[in-house]
Amino acid sequence: MNKPVNFETLDVGFDVPALPGMDEAEIQTPCLVLDLDALERNIKKMGDYAKSHGMRHRVHGKMHKSVDVAKLQEELGGAVGVCCQKVSEAEVFARGGIKDVLVSNQVRDPRKIDRLAQLPKLGARTIVCVDDVANVAELSAAAQKHGTEIEVFVEIDCGAGRCGVTTSDAVVEIAKAVEGADNLKFTGIQAYQGAMQHLDSYEDRKAKLDVAIGMVKDAVKALEAEGIDCELVSGGGTGSYYFESNSGVYNELQCGSYAFMDADYGRILDADGNRIDQGEWENAFFILTQVMSHAKADKAICDAGLKAQSVDSGLPVVYGRDDVEYVKCSDEHGVIADPNGALKVGDKLRLVPGHCDPTANVHDWYVGVRNGKVETLWPVSARGKAY
Amino acid sequence: MNKPVNFETLDVGFDVPALPGMDEAEIQTPCLVLDLDALERNIKKMGDYAKSHGMRHRVHGKMHKSVDVAKLQEELGGAVGVCCQKVSEAEVFARGGIKDVLVSNQVRDPRKIDRLAQLPKLGARTIVCVDDVANVAELSAAAQKHGTEIEVFVEIDCGAGRCGVTTSDAVVEIAKAVEGADNLKFTGIQAYQGAMQHLDSYEDRKAKLDVAIGMVKDAVKALEAEGIDCELVSGGGTGSYYFESNSGVYNELQCGSYAFMDADYGRILDADGNRIDQGEWENAFFILTQVMSHAKADKAICDAGLKAQSVDSGLPVVYGRDDVEYVKCSDEHGVIADPNGALKVGDKLRLVPGHCDPTANVHDWYVGVRNGKVETLWPVSARGKAY
Repeated sequence: MNKPVNFETLDVGFDVPALPGMDEAEIQTPCLVLDLDALERNIKKMGDYAKSHGMRHRVHGKMHKSVDVAKLQEELGGAVGVCCQKVSEAEVFARGGIKDVLVSNQVRDPRKIDRLAQLPKLGARTIVCVDDVANVAELSAAAQKHGTEIEVFVEIDCGAGRCGVTTSDAVVEIAKAVEGADNLKFTGIQAYQGAMQHLDSYEDRKAKLDVAIGMVKDAVKALEAEGIDCELVSGGGTGSYYFESNSGVYNELQCGSYAFMDADYGRILDADGNRIDQGEWENAFFILTQVMSHAKADKAICDAGLKAQSVDSGLPVVYGRDDVEYVKCSDEHGVIADPNGALKVGDKLRLVPGHCDPTANVHDWYVGVRNGKVETLWPVSARGKAY
Repeated sequence: MNKPVNFETLDVGFDVPALPGMDEAEIQTPCLVLDLDALERNIKKMGDYAKSHGMRHRVHGKMHKSVDVAKLQEELGGAVGVCCQKVSEAEVFARGGIKDVLVSNQVRDPRKIDRLAQLPKLGARTIVCVDDVANVAELSAAAQKHGTEIEVFVEIDCGAGRCGVTTSDAVVEIAKAVEGADNLKFTGIQAYQGAMQHLDSYEDRKAKLDVAIGMVKDAVKALEAEGIDCELVSGGGTGSYYFESNSGVYNELQCGSYAFMDADYGRILDADGNRIDQGEWENAFFILTQVMSHAKADKAICDAGLKAQSVDSGLPVVYGRDDVEYVKCSDEHGVIADPNGALKVGDKLRLVPGHCDPTANVHDWYVGVRNGKVETLWPVSARGKAY
């Protein structure tokens, strides 16, 4: 899975957008480019923060879907392992050598449960989220069948409005069922408030996290009252990690987007009212695109459209340019307003995508660049692993 | 490229969502499902229409990115070949045995031009669009280098507002340059009005196409005045093909979405005011998804989010159900309003995606089903081929 890539067998412009050693100017567009210096600084910074706050950092692998990036997060950022959302993603990370893997999601399909129960055989500590007591027997049966142990986080819906239980009673009920089930271990609580991460104002985000922290503290207390220990309380994202880190109850973070940044996250504000992409984090993740038509004087047409990105969180932003603007997106084209005719056919631009996770998921490769040269190519190892 | 798939080497739930012969109930979600009966009826219907109107049908391969679907369109629908938007896509189709390939787009990067010029060596008639006279010498040099012939469509921007020239003088200028260039042949005009395809009202679409047809007729006349013959005049989509077919000037269609249908196209109205997915075309293309959490009584959480589809043209519609509604989408989750508690964990639903093209592009496989059984798996052969 994470074997070294044999670049000699790969065809530039068909299989891969570039090869190591190339000048940046030769990269075939559209493709994903990682600024390796910026990426490394982001990873180190979050690692240092987690360490200084006594937090484990389980990086969110569903953001980048890359074994190589996850390993860099372990090396430079002291990450303890990954979380991800799907069993097939978890298999990619476990096969790639990640030793602690949380599927931060419910697994209910019988075939998926059977696969999940085999993950420990790949050498990975395996944790999964549960929000329905009926799921406990299913997981236990599969783990017994394969002679493995599955650890369980009970998921609390602390405001995201998706999966998860909403009362401490329900948490206790599931935890007790897990404690009583063979080959399962109750390990803690999953409490990720996804809905607040993108609120612009720091105070608005804090208010939502205060509610979440209150729910989590209540659940931990209720478990303690039953003599059940919570080894891990896990959650936190790029828009909230300081709240969880200072909560006195969470001990594990799950940040993802901080490493790459994107336009939608970049717009949110820190405690001082500054955009988080202007100091807290750096843009390390870009779509490289090229102007392919300029038949109209005031608009350039570039080669990155809907098949090179997801626009669910808005259009991409042209990086480092105030004079041109990406204003429209169709399947294979982007329309760039160019009122001063600053662009010409063949020019390349870096776009900061609206949303990094689903944008990474349409590409097969990351092109890692440093000092104007292609330094590395990393496969988007779990691309398309949605099962 | 289009070799038979060796299913024995593929792992269900990791490599592929299903295997031929399985019951539909066993398919791993989320994945793409094709209703083969509906697909074949759509393909045959458009083929019959084109034939009865004396139109060539060059099917748009960028929609499905599948050699297998393109071949079915040739077999059942009399398609003459494909168009697609990228050189890397064209390479997939040519390697897969499609003999007439139009890159319905500008190719300006030197490496891409070099690849384009080699396409005829794969046995494919190769046509490309040009909207800038400077592109002519680039194409000619590459075709000479490889000893091949590239055919050229001059692209007219007839209302889409992307690539293409806007005057007949510009068409004539480029056509003359092509006629004078070695190893190039002027073959005709590309005039696809993309912006009108999704207007709801038939009359609004007709008004836009009337303008486009006027521009095309003017350009053909201007070319004739210079003694330049237009072998092909190409354009037309699922929302307009009847206008081009009855225009007296177009002789080639480029329809794509009719074969699959999607929610955004389905909403447009035919001449009688009926939705085109209620009679004109059938939904043949679905995202199969499964309910994975129902911890809250009034909402089911399904496993198809932004990584299983593109929501640029709106959220998906739950097929054949009025009692539940897909109301929210995050990376790996869909929230389905279930006011009556009709759904339970494990239930599977077919979603009609908002936009078929970029939705197909995030998946690796089409699962072809008929009579409740998986009949075939087709790779999304040109998935990710965006270069």
